[in-house]
Amino acid sequence: MSTTPAKPHRVVIVGAGFGGLEATYRLAGAPVSITVIDRRNHHLFQPLLYQVATASLATSEIAWPIRYLLRDRRDVTTLFATVTGIAADRRCVVLEDGSEVAYDTLVLATGARHAYFGHDEWEKWAPGLKTLEDATTLRRHILVAFERAERETDPERRAARLTFVIIGAGPTGVELAGTIAELAHHTLPPDFRNVDTRKARVVLIEAGPRVLAGFADDLSAYAQRSLESIGVEVVLDQPVTEIDRDGVVSGGQRLNAKTIIWAAGVRASRAAEWLSAPHDRAGRLIVEPDLTAPGHPEIFAIGDTVTINAWNGKPVPGIAPAAKQEGRYVAAMIKARLNGEKLAPFRYKHAGSLAQIGKRLAVIDFGRIKLRGALAWWIWGIAHIYFLIGLRHRLAVALTWLWIYLRDQRAARLITQGSSKVVG
Amino acid sequence: MSTTPAKPHRVVIVGAGFGGLEATYRLAGAPVSITVIDRRNHHLFQPLLYQVATASLATSEIAWPIRYLLRDRRDVTTLFATVTGIAADRRCVVLEDGSEVAYDTLVLATGARHAYFGHDEWEKWAPGLKTLEDATTLRRHILVAFERAERETDPERRAARLTFVIIGAGPTGVELAGTIAELAHHTLPPDFRNVDTRKARVVLIEAGPRVLAGFADDLSAYAQRSLESIGVEVVLDQPVTEIDRDGVVSGGQRLNAKTIIWAAGVRASRAAEWLSAPHDRAGRLIVEPDLTAPGHPEIFAIGDTVTINAWNGKPVPGIAPAAKQEGRYVAAMIKARLNGEKLAPFRYKHAGSLAQIGKRLAVIDFGRIKLRGALAWWIWGIAHIYFLIGLRHRLAVALTWLWIYLRDQRAARLITQGSSKVVG
Repeated sequence: MSTTPAKPHRVVIVGAGFGGLEATYRLAGAPVSITVIDRRNHHLFQPLLYQVATASLATSEIAWPIRYLLRDRRDVTTLFATVTGIAADRRCVVLEDGSEVAYDTLVLATGARHAYFGHDEWEKWAPGLKTLEDATTLRRHILVAFERAERETDPERRAARLTFVIIGAGPTGVELAGTIAELAHHTLPPDFRNVDTRKARVVLIEAGPRVLAGFADDLSAYAQRSLESIGVEVVLDQPVTEIDRDGVVSGGQRLNAKTIIWAAGVRASRAAEWLSAPHDRAGRLIVEPDLTAPGHPEIFAIGDTVTINAWNGKPVPGIAPAAKQEGRYVAAMIKARLNGEKLAPFRYKHAGSLAQIGKRLAVIDFGRIKLRGALAWWIWGIAHIYFLIGLRHRLAVALTWLWIYLRDQRAARLITQGSSKVVG
Repeated sequence: MSTTPAKPHRVVIVGAGFGGLEATYRLAGAPVSITVIDRRNHHLFQPLLYQVATASLATSEIAWPIRYLLRDRRDVTTLFATVTGIAADRRCVVLEDGSEVAYDTLVLATGARHAYFGHDEWEKWAPGLKTLEDATTLRRHILVAFERAERETDPERRAARLTFVIIGAGPTGVELAGTIAELAHHTLPPDFRNVDTRKARVVLIEAGPRVLAGFADDLSAYAQRSLESIGVEVVLDQPVTEIDRDGVVSGGQRLNAKTIIWAAGVRASRAAEWLSAPHDRAGRLIVEPDLTAPGHPEIFAIGDTVTINAWNGKPVPGIAPAAKQEGRYVAAMIKARLNGEKLAPFRYKHAGSLAQIGKRLAVIDFGRIKLRGALAWWIWGIAHIYFLIGLRHRLAVALTWLWIYLRDQRAARLITQGSSKVVG
């Protein structure tokens, strides 16, 4: 099949996150017709989602309409639809209205949601952060907490309103804790009359022995010190055993808090379930070395919905660059197969890990080179602006960050989804 | 009372729209302590709300946290709370949790909602536009309509998905119709594969004999021609008699449409009801010449929740400049009273009327001077950027408009509030 077939090979890509979009981009020019299906109309830059949740960035600054990103690709059709199953025998994807989309090659890039390890009842009190709606809901929670504190006269209840607990000290947890501390200590104080928002407690609770477990030991220690220097209380080795409307229990200690945020774990999408394929405890499909589903050479699965030990024998981490590398590999595989060629198994190359802690505070772990503090923070900022799509979004985010940097002003401090009667 | 009293005069201002905020600003330096109460945490620049509904601007570009705007005013306390009534005998405002806020002078600036003239059941099918949530809900409606059309195979149903009906040809209706036409005809075409969004029908239905009834006749005629030139169908003298899930009936004719937007009428807030005060048919409190409620010299009411014939004997229009002038007058009245002085009755001065129709198309009616076309459009744009609060918002909106002007790109094309299964 080295010539273009009369009826082009049909590739269906489910999910337009980092992995699915990269596969689509890399298939440009290949003799295929592509259908991209997503149940959202937008691609989301998840690494900055915590900035929407903390009123730093607006929703439209980190999201792009998928069909707009693919408007120049006449070989791509975008569908705003929810996949509910896969009829692998008929090579069809089933949509929510019962209609089907046929494929020759399928790419599952359906991501993950947050997970509560068998405590789904916690979600109500400790929401997580994966979608734009999650972020605006968290933003409402956080901003309403300060508003309620301003009106509260009972000192204990006021203290609970001003206590913010973040569970899980990975990058998202650390970034949320640091930004909420800055919000409380630098952005909000001049705006309130009855409460001193600088007295807000931000508590980061981690079940493991250190923050940013994916980073080198000394960077973890530095991150912890930095968090503490900007007013975050770091609690280590304390798994949370209870969450209710009034607070959390960890290490046998109850902490009264009206805002609790879950950043402790994820569960893969239902891709493995759709295929009745082997998966790990987090529901991640265990893929073959070429990223296909076992027994289905025509089905690839990539990103947060899979697990594979392709990082020098270790599992590939659930981060955007990994999903992108997998998307790139799958595009190359599809092209190679159409040319009757073979490819070596997928291998993940780790470029580095970055996390922002606060203003002029970040850590970067490039392996040999480790950076911390102001330099790391500038590199973090420039890298993230670079990875945004398009000049307009880059300018908009740069402008927003400039205002936060110079004036501690966060323009996106909007409580939406109802009036004061409805919320919180 | 020309000296500052030991216990300052307590002014409570309900509503931080254009009127309430202006009164607060103008009371700076007066010997009063002010409490501003709003059930939203943000001031909203309503004249550009239609641009959020049509995916042109982001929510945070036209909204500001109220307490942020008043952060430097130590004499002002901001409360995020919903007023549920007024105990005028005890001079207290009652909040949603039953607590009370005492006043010496009360300013009601509680605005208006859209109204359906006894057809409240229409709201479900023809939402209106007054809040940020209204705008993001409308945005979702409009964007989902195009998405559903892309997946629809039945030609009739597809046509209904691509028919947008706007009821009411005042400035909001005209601006919505013009912008939806531009979205369909210029922004979206390259993004879709199965439908030609240029074939979308945008129908503006008006019960009266002309569009923009508040403008001079020749500007109305020009506006209608301009709308038609950019693909809007203008239907005049046809009151809508029926609205349901499949479309509207006007002038005995049924029009199948999946997106219907209500821009035809407003109803005042419950301010008149709270005071058992006289009101007109739209619920607007009929205020005294000094903007006080009849029988309550200590209660002022301003903006869209009142009616007064203070424009050379005609009713003051329900627009932002009118609310601001009333807010300014009330602040002057409060200060005059504290000094034992008197003021002449309120008189409204009309600066002019502006409406945008489309790119390089606008009308401005300054009374003697009337402008239309490209010059009017530039003045419209510059005026609106000027009236935004703060350099950051001005830069952000200018950047966004620049991209729309140069590239027809609308960055805020986000369908939120649920996935493809939930919406539409």
